[in-house]
Amino acid sequence: MSDKPKKVVLFGEVLLRLSPPGHQRFRQAACYDAIYGGSELNVALSLSHFGLRTDYITRLPDNALSDCVIEKLRGNGVSTGHIVYGGDRLGLYFIEIGAGHRGSRVVYDRAFSSMTTIEKGMVDWQKVLKGADWFHWSGITAGISATAAEVCAEAIEAARQMGVIVSTDFNYRNNLWHYGRKAGEVMEPLVGSSDVAIVGEYACKQYFDIAPEPGEDCAQELSVRLRDRFPALQRIAVTSREVISASHNKWSGELFGPKGRHRSATYDISDITDRIGTGDSFTAGLIYGLLQGQDDQQAVEFATAASCLKHTIFGDANLVSVQEVEDLMKGDRVGQVSR
Amino acid sequence: MSDKPKKVVLFGEVLLRLSPPGHQRFRQAACYDAIYGGSELNVALSLSHFGLRTDYITRLPDNALSDCVIEKLRGNGVSTGHIVYGGDRLGLYFIEIGAGHRGSRVVYDRAFSSMTTIEKGMVDWQKVLKGADWFHWSGITAGISATAAEVCAEAIEAARQMGVIVSTDFNYRNNLWHYGRKAGEVMEPLVGSSDVAIVGEYACKQYFDIAPEPGEDCAQELSVRLRDRFPALQRIAVTSREVISASHNKWSGELFGPKGRHRSATYDISDITDRIGTGDSFTAGLIYGLLQGQDDQQAVEFATAASCLKHTIFGDANLVSVQEVEDLMKGDRVGQVSR
Amino acid sequence: MSDKPKKVVLFGEVLLRLSPPGHQRFRQAACYDAIYGGSELNVALSLSHFGLRTDYITRLPDNALSDCVIEKLRGNGVSTGHIVYGGDRLGLYFIEIGAGHRGSRVVYDRAFSSMTTIEKGMVDWQKVLKGADWFHWSGITAGISATAAEVCAEAIEAARQMGVIVSTDFNYRNNLWHYGRKAGEVMEPLVGSSDVAIVGEYACKQYFDIAPEPGEDCAQELSVRLRDRFPALQRIAVTSREVISASHNKWSGELFGPKGRHRSATYDISDITDRIGTGDSFTAGLIYGLLQGQDDQQAVEFATAASCLKHTIFGDANLVSVQEVEDLMKGDRVGQVSR
Amino acid sequence: MSDKPKKVVLFGEVLLRLSPPGHQRFRQAACYDAIYGGSELNVALSLSHFGLRTDYITRLPDNALSDCVIEKLRGNGVSTGHIVYGGDRLGLYFIEIGAGHRGSRVVYDRAFSSMTTIEKGMVDWQKVLKGADWFHWSGITAGISATAAEVCAEAIEAARQMGVIVSTDFNYRNNLWHYGRKAGEVMEPLVGSSDVAIVGEYACKQYFDIAPEPGEDCAQELSVRLRDRFPALQRIAVTSREVISASHNKWSGELFGPKGRHRSATYDISDITDRIGTGDSFTAGLIYGLLQGQDDQQAVEFATAASCLKHTIFGDANLVSVQEVEDLMKGDRVGQVSR
Amino acid sequence: MSDKPKKVVLFGEVLLRLSPPGHQRFRQAACYDAIYGGSELNVALSLSHFGLRTDYITRLPDNALSDCVIEKLRGNGVSTGHIVYGGDRLGLYFIEIGAGHRGSRVVYDRAFSSMTTIEKGMVDWQKVLKGADWFHWSGITAGISATAAEVCAEAIEAARQMGVIVSTDFNYRNNLWHYGRKAGEVMEPLVGSSDVAIVGEYACKQYFDIAPEPGEDCAQELSVRLRDRFPALQRIAVTSREVISASHNKWSGELFGPKGRHRSATYDISDITDRIGTGDSFTAGLIYGLLQGQDDQQAVEFATAASCLKHTIFGDANLVSVQEVEDLMKGDRVGQVSR
Amino acid sequence: MSDKPKKVVLFGEVLLRLSPPGHQRFRQAACYDAIYGGSELNVALSLSHFGLRTDYITRLPDNALSDCVIEKLRGNGVSTGHIVYGGDRLGLYFIEIGAGHRGSRVVYDRAFSSMTTIEKGMVDWQKVLKGADWFHWSGITAGISATAAEVCAEAIEAARQMGVIVSTDFNYRNNLWHYGRKAGEVMEPLVGSSDVAIVGEYACKQYFDIAPEPGEDCAQELSVRLRDRFPALQRIAVTSREVISASHNKWSGELFGPKGRHRSATYDISDITDRIGTGDSFTAGLIYGLLQGQDDQQAVEFATAASCLKHTIFGDANLVSVQEVEDLMKGDRVGQVSR
Repeated sequence: MSDKPKKVVLFGEVLLRLSPPGHQRFRQAACYDAIYGGSELNVALSLSHFGLRTDYITRLPDNALSDCVIEKLRGNGVSTGHIVYGGDRLGLYFIEIGAGHRGSRVVYDRAFSSMTTIEKGMVDWQKVLKGADWFHWSGITAGISATAAEVCAEAIEAARQMGVIVSTDFNYRNNLWHYGRKAGEVMEPLVGSSDVAIVGEYACKQYFDIAPEPGEDCAQELSVRLRDRFPALQRIAVTSREVISASHNKWSGELFGPKGRHRSATYDISDITDRIGTGDSFTAGLIYGLLQGQDDQQAVEFATAASCLKHTIFGDANLVSVQEVEDLMKGDRVGQVSR
Repeated sequence: MSDKPKKVVLFGEVLLRLSPPGHQRFRQAACYDAIYGGSELNVALSLSHFGLRTDYITRLPDNALSDCVIEKLRGNGVSTGHIVYGGDRLGLYFIEIGAGHRGSRVVYDRAFSSMTTIEKGMVDWQKVLKGADWFHWSGITAGISATAAEVCAEAIEAARQMGVIVSTDFNYRNNLWHYGRKAGEVMEPLVGSSDVAIVGEYACKQYFDIAPEPGEDCAQELSVRLRDRFPALQRIAVTSREVISASHNKWSGELFGPKGRHRSATYDISDITDRIGTGDSFTAGLIYGLLQGQDDQQAVEFATAASCLKHTIFGDANLVSVQEVEDLMKGDRVGQVSR
Repeated sequence: MSDKPKKVVLFGEVLLRLSPPGHQRFRQAACYDAIYGGSELNVALSLSHFGLRTDYITRLPDNALSDCVIEKLRGNGVSTGHIVYGGDRLGLYFIEIGAGHRGSRVVYDRAFSSMTTIEKGMVDWQKVLKGADWFHWSGITAGISATAAEVCAEAIEAARQMGVIVSTDFNYRNNLWHYGRKAGEVMEPLVGSSDVAIVGEYACKQYFDIAPEPGEDCAQELSVRLRDRFPALQRIAVTSREVISASHNKWSGELFGPKGRHRSATYDISDITDRIGTGDSFTAGLIYGLLQGQDDQQAVEFATAASCLKHTIFGDANLVSVQEVEDLMKGDRVGQVSR
Repeated sequence: MSDKPKKVVLFGEVLLRLSPPGHQRFRQAACYDAIYGGSELNVALSLSHFGLRTDYITRLPDNALSDCVIEKLRGNGVSTGHIVYGGDRLGLYFIEIGAGHRGSRVVYDRAFSSMTTIEKGMVDWQKVLKGADWFHWSGITAGISATAAEVCAEAIEAARQMGVIVSTDFNYRNNLWHYGRKAGEVMEPLVGSSDVAIVGEYACKQYFDIAPEPGEDCAQELSVRLRDRFPALQRIAVTSREVISASHNKWSGELFGPKGRHRSATYDISDITDRIGTGDSFTAGLIYGLLQGQDDQQAVEFATAASCLKHTIFGDANLVSVQEVEDLMKGDRVGQVSR
Repeated sequence: MSDKPKKVVLFGEVLLRLSPPGHQRFRQAACYDAIYGGSELNVALSLSHFGLRTDYITRLPDNALSDCVIEKLRGNGVSTGHIVYGGDRLGLYFIEIGAGHRGSRVVYDRAFSSMTTIEKGMVDWQKVLKGADWFHWSGITAGISATAAEVCAEAIEAARQMGVIVSTDFNYRNNLWHYGRKAGEVMEPLVGSSDVAIVGEYACKQYFDIAPEPGEDCAQELSVRLRDRFPALQRIAVTSREVISASHNKWSGELFGPKGRHRSATYDISDITDRIGTGDSFTAGLIYGLLQGQDDQQAVEFATAASCLKHTIFGDANLVSVQEVEDLMKGDRVGQVSR
Repeated sequence: MSDKPKKVVLFGEVLLRLSPPGHQRFRQAACYDAIYGGSELNVALSLSHFGLRTDYITRLPDNALSDCVIEKLRGNGVSTGHIVYGGDRLGLYFIEIGAGHRGSRVVYDRAFSSMTTIEKGMVDWQKVLKGADWFHWSGITAGISATAAEVCAEAIEAARQMGVIVSTDFNYRNNLWHYGRKAGEVMEPLVGSSDVAIVGEYACKQYFDIAPEPGEDCAQELSVRLRDRFPALQRIAVTSREVISASHNKWSGELFGPKGRHRSATYDISDITDRIGTGDSFTAGLIYGLLQGQDDQQAVEFATAASCLKHTIFGDANLVSVQEVEDLMKGDRVGQVSR
């Protein structure tokens, strides 16, 4: 056995995120803080900070903004050697970060991006996935264009053939899926070839019309019905957020696996700095835990603690170490000054 | 009937507000954030964001700072065509924004402003109020100088003659009323000619020596005694703030009208960004609600929800839309990310 | 005759401009300064600061960023009542502001904007141009899409019918004109219906293959050949920039009109703050001068002095008053402290 | 008796503190906020803001950064006339300010500082302490080097001979005490010559192996055992912090003196701005209270209220006035706007 | 003879200066940089940085902004113990810092300040001037109000009686002298009792109708006529500024004294950071040179070099050391990196 | 022949550079801009931006600041895999960036850094230099400590044995060389084993007492005498800076090689943004040119043009591409807007 860190390949779209400083409204902003995000990228960055090897696949326009993306990824230890170039533009989104009773507001500007015009054959998946232990994709990639969904399918198929574990985050977005195919039809075979899924109630309803009745144990129902429908799915994770205000949430996670249901501790999170990307940080924690051989209970605890910390970090990505997550899980240094 | 939006005329003083960034103390500040505020202006800006037509009347010095005021007002859709010019200076105030157990601290520098030397006849109220549905003034304008109080009286009289609804915010300020007349004597006829009043316990005591005994239902008592004394007053609104810390308040409103007493929901507001102008945002919500034909219960709910959102916004004015207020009232998107 | 200020209608595209603070490179930027620009908008803003009435016509997406555009325009006194809404996105561009021997670098991201999908009939030009004295368009609008060029033609035709003076800035951009028609063919009838043109050597070559030989008096040749080809053109203006470095330019203008050739003074401009939009500020100065009845020499002097001042102002638009331009022309307060 | 304010002499090390803005992580920072801190300096600054005379003794390198230190101290009214110069460098530390469940993280860089190479005889303690009412030192000074500990002993001895009250803050730091002597051996005689001690459970264990059993009344036990061992100690103070998160703590203090045990009110402190230096602000409050002749109960209440306010202030030092502390103790203006 | 540094007493008004960051126009500013200035204060700060003892006399309102003034002065080593308190407000001014061909623009807001209502008897000049070597005042102080001019006369008389050298900077300001007395009548006796004057052509004309004819040697003429009129004047200094642009000036000084005329080198100053206060920095250099016993040629060279450096420093005051001025005069380290 | 880019190994010390924003003095700074610099690192970063492979060797402490260094290097494409860890601290320096006649001022704080305690054997030079084409070191590394100089010798010897070209930048620093050995004795064998040297007049005098007489052709003399003394030196480069002010320099380079003397064009550089690291950018340009097979004239032109651009970039490193350097050399886009 090699002692190299495990390697995770991720496929998705980078977005330039532009947000007014602090909690300003758009019309108050004379400048925008600029960072780079995107669901799968956030997972990649977090995994890299956990010490795993990561290789992020996307398509970028050939311009100076892409140079900035590459610097950010490389600087954080994410491999960028298999990124392909071409197309018109880098997708972006504007976000006004809420506070108190005012939620965050997003204006997407991601249509016509280079990633939407990616095509089968542009990425050499055999080469990319060689030596990889895990491949991760999300419903966002499938939702941005028909060709992106096809490349997603191409990647998943390669991964399965090569024995690479496949995970998906359902990540249903209303403002996507406008390219003429039904979301559920596109997602059906892709999810059917995945081993691990991070899912949400709304996404299950939108994609597959799976919708527990009021009064039913929702997470339990989702997991049962999804596993009935997609027998390849070994593990299904669900996160739970109780929104008291934009600044105060309660947060926990569950993992349904071969040995049943595992619930994490619930974190009471006030003074939220930035909740964008918290779901992705959970996914990264889960992948890390499972790849490191943690049992399901440990893995869901690790994932939830990791994403609890994400709420304190500006930006989309969870810039924390394994040590910091474990300290929080042990609870002995919560919020202390570490001198 | 016209389908133009309703039109509100407001009369008051603009102040340049200078505040150290974040929660710095004055002596820590190397720069000051600069915005424009003032009780009636805050109402005007909020009403404009609600979609009503607003015309703001004030007196400004003829200098470059006034150009900035005009740009800000026009940019937010407030008409500035009837503003008059002259006098020595723009009033201003410095504010250190508190946090936790440290309250905000204000240093006023508004004496000798152009507005204090406004005189009767400078504003053509017939012209200004033509086509208006509502006129709003506050006790601050009456308190800054004898001549400003006279112009206030002039405006109220014109409004009554022209059938325009008149509202007042009592807004008692200790640091005003230094021009040699008793506050109550000045206010008596002005309030007596108003239809709607937003009042507070302290102001009622200072102006009119109306002071419920401990144990009495304070809001109820105020409303009864004010309506006894000022029969023209159709509606009296009272807001209630419980201060847990500078960052954490509870907030609700009440409206006493022809059909009795109407209490709004109470909002628990933590992580306050800026509570200056929250009373004005309540006033704007109330005027909006009543002008749109809401019943008294709806109007006080709308006003309180609007001012709840103001606590999340930097600056004196409530930059929120009717949709955002209604979303909060329905409660289904509190603090969520709106993608 | 009315003593109202003259009214200018302008038609073009707004772009959100995002630039790293100061002279940072893109990869050094943690945030971007955000302003709104666009050739015709810059002209509108400058004319508004000169005291003229301006009405800016464009098409914007129906989102929160457009609200910011509207606030900026209204705040600066530009009428926005005839702007139409729809389409996918607001165009934008990124600019790295050069210094010394390093020039500025632009990354455009304007494809697929709401303005590119504007169509004939969306704007009621009869209504828009009623009471207008001048209509201004530029080659950029014609270059972004076939339909935008058609709307441009529609506007010019209406203007001519209504006796409104028409001006054009040639403004050739390499990165436009990709919609399948030859630039010259599109521009030919549009320029042929215009009264005033601000032109450049490169644009004349690209559009009409008009190219003076080395050794010829270039500006003179351009003006002669353009007037031969487009007899309706009453006046042709050419600006001249000698680039010593990104921070140091020499700048002058010429106007060829009925009474011959008029050259302005040459300004030696060091310590340039921002040269984007300097051509537009010249155009605004020229329109102002001609509309105010200045003779051609006065007008070109005013235009050149106005654009000299633009080099000192951050952003795309020339935020200076007529008084400031005239002071510079008189030369008696150049760079002094005005107390 | 003179009516001059009381005078306190303090001896310790200044550190330049560099922190990423807001709650950024180190790797997110493009700049660092720079302030000057250090336990005894924080006490000096707070006492100066309370109106006492303070004289701060340290050793600084002879460079431009020390000029900044001097400006900061003098500006806040702390005398700097007895500071000595020489040695290699100003100590510094980097701190990432936590939020929510992520604690603050410190990287010290104070080794080899000018203060570590201070030597006996460099400070003329007879001159320094003339006219002083109180001398304060802390375990940090004793822990940075053998010679600094010797100078500390020299100062304490002079103070006792001259009848100046001596206080100490135990302030055990793991990252100090590396110069080859046992912490307890060094501290034993120094504490033995002090009148007042501010102590903590961890420090008592590390220095003197005084460690109450689980189940014992910890504060009570510490005070009893310390007074048994150090009979000169008249008063022993202990603060208590319950950490709910980095943004939310509960905070109280106790003082054990000649008349027994005195507990302060407990403050529930959410929305913490900066908790560095809160212990020092307690110490300053305690010294102030005792020097002004408050009884022990009053003094511990004042100290705790003062340090409650410190949590709202950016930086290491407590920039509040006696009036503000007393207002908080009275509780009638907590978190209000003070107009 | 004592070896204490010489002591200079200065009397004038502090103004809070608020300026948009960089070269922004007022309407572009979302915040204002805040510093404290005022002609005599600028002289005091510079002298303090040269190592002299300085005592600054003014009148301040009793509020939190004055605390900031005091911190700034004390931090820079200026004594504040004789400042008197009372009156309504701190004067302030807004300045837009020009660049290139756009000059700086000032909006004063200093009327009704605490200093304008200072009265005779408020300052104990005998006490203040005890031990002083030099007293400095300027025409600004005489111009703000009749009572301020009276206090100025009171101070000058005391200084003369006590053998303290008196200097004045003519500093004529158009926006002052509105209190009903002629500027020249007020200035006549004050200048007549001064030993050293820093004068300008415009001021000489406004105050005393002294105006050389075109073609005459202006500086020479001013000095001759002033010394004829004011026999007590031992030395008269004139500075000369050639304004190429707001960013590029040429600067030199002359001193007319007992041994005739002395001209300094001329400095070509491009890339000006902030020219406000450059005249005051010249005055400080001159006072320093003369007090240190430099001959007239040395003193005017020192003064001019000092003020040359001021052009590179943001703010009103010249924060440079004697060493830095001397290095510039020697010319061997101009613009080098000093490692 | 491989078509991989050439590979350069560099050995030196990283310093955290802290500078007040803009041209502030230290005492004006409330924060410090933070970047990472160091002579050899600057060369590495520039070479990486030119597209070469670079491997940077240094020793870093094991703390969070080093993580930031690694992110910055990796992000810019510099390999960090052979960096060694240990020791006490990261060296740092503070710099006040001059303007006009005020030069930059540096306060070093690099003593006791991790790099000063590096020792022979810590770096496996055989492994590091495998496959490398070039090795670069500078006199700074030799000057910080005896052991660092030994490791430098170790590296140079390995490079020579492995046929790797060795270059050195003399880089004499007054504030180094305090470890008890004469600079010249240490440098003699190191320079004697190098192939290319970038030298300066002052360094040649300090190290080797090589000092041309006034009147001699300085660069020529240096090159002759150095090549006499160090026969292995194939090429010697000298840069020439004429300092008009901190903002305005003239800059050129010369290269003495096998085919004689080659002078570059001279650049007149005004509006300098940051001249730190300009020498290093020349070195990077020279290494690039020579490694790409340019002849000596081409190489010195490339090096000088590259370093001309560096003057426009904030920070120590030259973030420009080969294309940008070549554009400047061709001169056709100097200071233009590149759309």
